[in-house]
Amino acid sequence: MQIVLLGSGNVATHLGKALNAAGIQIVQVWSRTLQNAQQLAAELKADAIDNLGAVQSDADLYLISVNDDAIADVAGRLPQDKLLVHTSGSTDMEVLKPFSAKTGVLYPLQTFSKQKKVEFKNIPVAVEASGSEVLGMLRQIARTISNKVIELDSDQRQKLHIAAVFACNFTNHFYAIAQSFLEQNGMDFDLIRPLIAETAEKIQEKMPADVQTGPAVRGDNKTMEKHLEALREHPQWQELYRLLSQSIVNLKSGS
Amino acid sequence: MQIVLLGSGNVATHLGKALNAAGIQIVQVWSRTLQNAQQLAAELKADAIDNLGAVQSDADLYLISVNDDAIADVAGRLPQDKLLVHTSGSTDMEVLKPFSAKTGVLYPLQTFSKQKKVEFKNIPVAVEASGSEVLGMLRQIARTISNKVIELDSDQRQKLHIAAVFACNFTNHFYAIAQSFLEQNGMDFDLIRPLIAETAEKIQEKMPADVQTGPAVRGDNKTMEKHLEALREHPQWQELYRLLSQSIVNLKSGS
Repeated sequence: MQIVLLGSGNVATHLGKALNAAGIQIVQVWSRTLQNAQQLAAELKADAIDNLGAVQSDADLYLISVNDDAIADVAGRLPQDKLLVHTSGSTDMEVLKPFSAKTGVLYPLQTFSKQKKVEFKNIPVAVEASGSEVLGMLRQIARTISNKVIELDSDQRQKLHIAAVFACNFTNHFYAIAQSFLEQNGMDFDLIRPLIAETAEKIQEKMPADVQTGPAVRGDNKTMEKHLEALREHPQWQELYRLLSQSIVNLKSGS
Repeated sequence: MQIVLLGSGNVATHLGKALNAAGIQIVQVWSRTLQNAQQLAAELKADAIDNLGAVQSDADLYLISVNDDAIADVAGRLPQDKLLVHTSGSTDMEVLKPFSAKTGVLYPLQTFSKQKKVEFKNIPVAVEASGSEVLGMLRQIARTISNKVIELDSDQRQKLHIAAVFACNFTNHFYAIAQSFLEQNGMDFDLIRPLIAETAEKIQEKMPADVQTGPAVRGDNKTMEKHLEALREHPQWQELYRLLSQSIVNLKSGS
């Protein structure tokens, strides 16, 4: 099994390393920027290229881990009719169809930062494939790096991605608002780190809807009014506060 | 040091247990509901009462840990001119002033659920007091249960509470939206638990503004449009998606 890895971003980096650690050979790493390709290729003991024309044509799998918008463009310039697999949450597998009969998706659900190591074994990996043979192969590859491999079609995978945007991206933005608001008022973000850790830890065992706390779920309108007044210099955060509080009430009442 | 604990909710329960474990004596637990008072009092080896007239008048400190709206009411029915301390984030210390010259606040910043144990030592405790003597006493008490005691005035404490609403309550609500959306689409919340854990873990070392990921911060409008379209049956979540994405862009550009 020889893989050509297209891309050198966060997902390409973490996925490439996990595959490599599992004994799967990455033979080439392509990036638009040669230096990025070289950096990742060095870690994977692969060749680095920045020219799609130099991609070797005898690999078993071409793993496309680039920005969603660039997937079709990259796929169209690869050797024809090879097994093409992308790693995107919200891109339909269909996007690869014009370029090969054998296509698939391998989507690891995690937030990757280049500097931070993650335990890949715990990361859910969603797979999709154009046929049962490819599916079996992708399942096998995914199982070498993750204990949690599931099959999802493109529609479900997109919905999983949307859930992830709420649970991860939007959540981190609220951490950032807290950081900014604390700093503006002479307090340290450190104050709130234990609270964030506990909030995420609590739902590892419980369901979030069952452990909601705070003024909105208590119906504590007085506190909410005080908070809105204290946010008067931040109309956008005020608006978020209002909408979130309403949404908490609605979810509780099942509407 | 003898404390009368007014309240039997989540904060009263966890705080009472932490004080008790630190060797500070809780002599009475009052709750509107005798059964709740009895349950907590049994754990603290204290007496249970449901009548504020039965509160003993010789305690050193009356710790009022009830709903914000009820603090003044409870304080007004306690023995006069005793040391009154409340545990609320968004209630001014002033609310206790009509009832005693010696007042204070002891606010533990955490999300408490009755069923779940927390490591109190890591929880920041904000203290405020009407004078230096009371302040010294509250600092001393707080230090027996927490390694992170800070002095904050009522205005700062409220702002810390607002930051906590964003970082904890609103964040948990996004977990709940993810849960609901996954369930509606035949997927398990378990799929997203590792992502939530990693998102919270990442900011224990980094600052959230520096590790924002997702379509909004990447400027990936195509993906955002697809997500908004997929949320069409949930206009409120659609609106949240729009606002959060805009807010992420704004924070990044410093506006």
